[in-house]
Amino acid sequence: MSIKAIAFDAYGTIFDVFSIGALAEDLFPGRGEALAAAWRVKQIDYTRLRTLSDRYEPFSKVTRDALTFAARSLGLALDEAGAEALMTAYDHLAVFPDSAVALRRLRALGLPLAILSNGDPPMLRAVVDQAGLGGVFDHLLSVDAAGRFKTAPEAYALGPKAFGCAASDILFVSSNGWDACGAAWYGYRSFWINRTGAPLEALDIVPAGIGDSMHDVIDFVTRALDG
Amino acid sequence: MSIKAIAFDAYGTIFDVFSIGALAEDLFPGRGEALAAAWRVKQIDYTRLRTLSDRYEPFSKVTRDALTFAARSLGLALDEAGAEALMTAYDHLAVFPDSAVALRRLRALGLPLAILSNGDPPMLRAVVDQAGLGGVFDHLLSVDAAGRFKTAPEAYALGPKAFGCAASDILFVSSNGWDACGAAWYGYRSFWINRTGAPLEALDIVPAGIGDSMHDVIDFVTRALDG
Repeated sequence: MSIKAIAFDAYGTIFDVFSIGALAEDLFPGRGEALAAAWRVKQIDYTRLRTLSDRYEPFSKVTRDALTFAARSLGLALDEAGAEALMTAYDHLAVFPDSAVALRRLRALGLPLAILSNGDPPMLRAVVDQAGLGGVFDHLLSVDAAGRFKTAPEAYALGPKAFGCAASDILFVSSNGWDACGAAWYGYRSFWINRTGAPLEALDIVPAGIGDSMHDVIDFVTRALDG
Repeated sequence: MSIKAIAFDAYGTIFDVFSIGALAEDLFPGRGEALAAAWRVKQIDYTRLRTLSDRYEPFSKVTRDALTFAARSLGLALDEAGAEALMTAYDHLAVFPDSAVALRRLRALGLPLAILSNGDPPMLRAVVDQAGLGGVFDHLLSVDAAGRFKTAPEAYALGPKAFGCAASDILFVSSNGWDACGAAWYGYRSFWINRTGAPLEALDIVPAGIGDSMHDVIDFVTRALDG
């Protein structure tokens, strides 16, 4: 089976969200990790609830709302300046070193590349440009165009539409197990970068590839193109 | 505004899931609370992911899958007997004392009552019957009939259909903030029993009523019927 294009999740896959936790720790010493974790959980919860109930709002708003809840749930007095600083951190994330290498290598193979993310267009544009990746991606695909967050089929459908080929010819790469499984359900060949040593999601589906880092994606793609 | 019927969430609202954590603690001393918490989170995650991706499976299977994942994520060696014991605990939950009182009082007011739960029909039947509540509810509504879990509109639609009245004439009662918000989005008058002192979900919607226990539901309903 060949691979004609590759779509990547953004946050946690291409971009390292570590700096958000570090900033949270600066704001709330000893509680930063807990705040970042609660924020992330609630952010994902809200994307799902709003999609299930057909109450879509852009990821920036969902993320801001989740931060409000997370701070309250931990009893942290987050003021507007702190919230703004944490939100702005999303525009200044570092690229994982293995992802930077992989994007260059995969691009050199002549494969069209895209980001397919829950992030809304301004967020994606900002983080991609500040990282100097503006010329790397053929498409920055935001679920905003579908009005539904992953794992809704309408969100994943943006990939085949942009690339003009079947989902089964596109490799979808994510560090989130649920995202890799959701993409596989949709019909992609999916690859799970298990950066944290998590167990596979018990969802009756297994991604086509699983590895520790983006280096394993390069190997997977190279083998697929040779095979 | 009158209230013509009341629909209740089941787990955590009518039935106390404390015994599950206690059993988990017996199986894994010192880790029971963590296992029960991780299990619950993953159980809800899986209901949402399967609904978003249109991959419905009954709640019993989703719950069992979530247990498998939760145990693995914590590095706990859960054998089949342990898993079976934890699953069976769902059929033997105690009724919260305030819920037992409220169900009698609300029933005495002549209001038709239902459970509207993610649980599948055999699970709901088992837990209701063992608790001696078989005669209390006019309807045991499982989202299984809709093939979608809450907060999907198809799941909440079971209430108005069963009671034969508009959602806005039905009070929907849940201890889960997201469930109370989802029901309000759908069109119910909803009541959030905030048993744990959690902050309100930041979802741009506020339940019609909020209280600490089911006693506050009695007050809310009594006032609504008098008003």
